Amino acid sequence: MSAIQESAQALEQAIRNSEEFNGLKDAYDTVMNDEIAKKMFDDFRNTQLELQQKQMQGEEITEEEVEKARKVVETVQQHEQISKLMEEEQRVNDLINEISRTITKPLEELYGSQEG
Amino acid sequence: MSAIQESAQALEQAIRNSEEFNGLKDAYDTVMNDEIAKKMFDDFRNTQLELQQKQMQGEEITEEEVEKARKVVETVQQHEQISKLMEEEQRVNDLINEISRTITKPLEELYGSQEG
Ligand SMILES: [Ca+2]
Ligand SMILES: [Ca+2]
Repeated sequence: MSAIQESAQALEQAIRNSEEFNGLKDAYDTVMNDEIAKKMFDDFRNTQLELQQKQMQGEEITEEEVEKARKVVETVQQHEQISKLMEEEQRVNDLINEISRTITKPLEELYGSQEG
Repeated sequence: MSAIQESAQALEQAIRNSEEFNGLKDAYDTVMNDEIAKKMFDDFRNTQLELQQKQMQGEEITEEEVEKARKVVETVQQHEQISKLMEEEQRVNDLINEISRTITKPLEELYGSQEG
């Protein structure tokens, strides 16, 4: 195994053992084991995905769709377990972004060295 | 320092020491130290970026622009040092993608567990 593969697997294990990942796992399991919460969360995700896809394809998003999305967000934000899940997702996202910044430093240094 | 930060920094160092990264660095320096190659490569990158931005913004790409891009690609592909740089970039991209797949495994397992 290369030094990179070894380090990447050590990092994977550290993520798996992290407070952040386990907090996300608990919050996710809580929502998924509650039929009503699961349905609300799935609706929320599907609505988000639909709008993102339309945006990416340059399709028009109607006022009704914006309003529907706003209501779905409002509803899930008032649901304690789903709010918690979204917070935990944000924490793990932040962690992954920080890791990503660290491991792409060599590339940033290389490509930044010709500026200015 | 957290276990994650330690592992991420070890991984950064492994990338920095890798054959792949050093191959890219050599190829990049070779192009950047050759005035004509550097200009060709910069033109190529700028043309790519322009087209990507237009695509992302849903703007129309004219036949002239497609033709111009095709010619720029053809030109850089015939330049030995730039071709070499592009190959080395692909190798490092593949490496980063493999790392990325490894470290996001815990998330994929979590979010995949509710399917089917
Ligand atoms: Ca610089
Ligand atoms: Ca599954």
